[in-house]
Amino acid sequence: MTELATKILSGDARSLARAATAIENRSAAAESLLKELFPHTGRATVIGLTGAAGAGKSTLTDRLIHELRRENKAVGVLAVDPTSPYTGGAFLGDRIRMLSHHADPGVFIRSMATRGHLGGLAAAATDMALLLDAAGKEFVLIETVGVGQDEVEIAKVADVTVVVLVPGMGDDVQVIKAGIMEIADVFVINKADQSGGADRLEREILALQSLSTRHDGWVPPIVRTVATEGQGIVETLAAIRSFLVRSGVKDRAVANWSLRLREMLRERLLEQFANIDFQAAAAEVAARRSDPYTITNAWLKKWLA
Amino acid sequence: MTELATKILSGDARSLARAATAIENRSAAAESLLKELFPHTGRATVIGLTGAAGAGKSTLTDRLIHELRRENKAVGVLAVDPTSPYTGGAFLGDRIRMLSHHADPGVFIRSMATRGHLGGLAAAATDMALLLDAAGKEFVLIETVGVGQDEVEIAKVADVTVVVLVPGMGDDVQVIKAGIMEIADVFVINKADQSGGADRLEREILALQSLSTRHDGWVPPIVRTVATEGQGIVETLAAIRSFLVRSGVKDRAVANWSLRLREMLRERLLEQFANIDFQAAAAEVAARRSDPYTITNAWLKKWLA
Repeated sequence: MTELATKILSGDARSLARAATAIENRSAAAESLLKELFPHTGRATVIGLTGAAGAGKSTLTDRLIHELRRENKAVGVLAVDPTSPYTGGAFLGDRIRMLSHHADPGVFIRSMATRGHLGGLAAAATDMALLLDAAGKEFVLIETVGVGQDEVEIAKVADVTVVVLVPGMGDDVQVIKAGIMEIADVFVINKADQSGGADRLEREILALQSLSTRHDGWVPPIVRTVATEGQGIVETLAAIRSFLVRSGVKDRAVANWSLRLREMLRERLLEQFANIDFQAAAAEVAARRSDPYTITNAWLKKWLA
Repeated sequence: MTELATKILSGDARSLARAATAIENRSAAAESLLKELFPHTGRATVIGLTGAAGAGKSTLTDRLIHELRRENKAVGVLAVDPTSPYTGGAFLGDRIRMLSHHADPGVFIRSMATRGHLGGLAAAATDMALLLDAAGKEFVLIETVGVGQDEVEIAKVADVTVVVLVPGMGDDVQVIKAGIMEIADVFVINKADQSGGADRLEREILALQSLSTRHDGWVPPIVRTVATEGQGIVETLAAIRSFLVRSGVKDRAVANWSLRLREMLRERLLEQFANIDFQAAAAEVAARRSDPYTITNAWLKKWLA
């Protein structure tokens, strides 16, 4: 075993940070490290937290960290930084949180930039979660902002996905948004002390839930929180745990790995795509000098010979 | 040239229907037919129409067909049937329309089921559009319901994408919904005679447009229609044409083909995936008897030897 792997297994924060950087840069060293660490993983519970910007997700995450630390659990946090122009990059809040937990060796917080290409986020988040798992973190919180595909990607990685909503933010938008209903294992209505809006939002969620049934039969509970006041945090954790106990974590792990293996294979194949001049081929096709079927077949024959 | 290809090039509706079925079934014969037809394609304008269920899209499509027929243009229509449980399968409206245009040889309407797997819809729609193109249809309208990824898939196939909205349907939901702002080349506010709502909806679209600029610099026009009354149909066609004239259709065709080639290649590779028992491999990984990196590499080595 390499020295770096040994240090990570012992929970050394500096080595952890170094390995995280290697994973983010997708260096060759990262893969061999992850291979080494992999047999020592599988113990952490991975919690995905997602929701619109401004839903108070960072505060909620922060409170969950504190609660888990009170139980003396080791915690790792991945804060996914959207590169979307709408949110303007890294969150100031993450920086502040990192400072606030800086002195606590039981907490490791890492910001991770989204890569923009499909599959990249799930791949990087999986690797990061494995790293934190190997380093002995019992809970890994992955926090992402609900932009585009990111939340769906994270749901593939997490053992349980918490969707954070907030009253009065164009509520229906948040809830109905493509895919959200499918990925939420637990709903949190944060800022629930805001006048009356929480009732309405809960009714909307219940109405949508009544339209369809999950194939695992689970009805995601709806927890109300006021994260800034620390209200509802224990209840949120309880809801998370009730899902984990009930859902058959092992089946979910196999299902998630099945998806991940498929995507890893696809990504590797896509790397081969980098050698193809699609633009030139497309120009041939657009000008009808060749046809897409002949071109695709020729590529395949070359590769799968 | 095969007899079927010759008949299709002459616009024979019965042969067209037979070929469409072959394409839907992804038969081997379909590919060789499309290869034969491909050099005779590239003349049709493909218009994508998308929007939420209940936006009056079918009626709008119907009016556009009539308008184009008044100009004596040959028209093909692909009505994408969502298989989503939310909408309950095929539209009755399509069936009625098919009957209403049944006697007109200048119109060919076909319903197409969505396949559920990513990339499948774009692939099938591309092939269908090529078929209609080869058969001499000058305009191909692809109508889809805004569920999940379908509308984004269709935008990859279409030369121009029209997003149909309607006042008072939880407006912001429709507009902000992931991806819609990016794919709309033309906005239609249908049922614009509904009290006051059209103004509000237009303001919302304008507000969102002001947040970001498309990289082609195009600002999608907003057309108001009352499709049931035939109002705004000519204006919609004019807006579509102003986009087509301005945007450099050729560049867009090359860009679309570049994407399509990439996806075709990926799909072909995914067919190879069918031989892999991902579930069994995932169980090995979940039990930590192997690691995902070793497994993926072994598959790749086998294929890319």
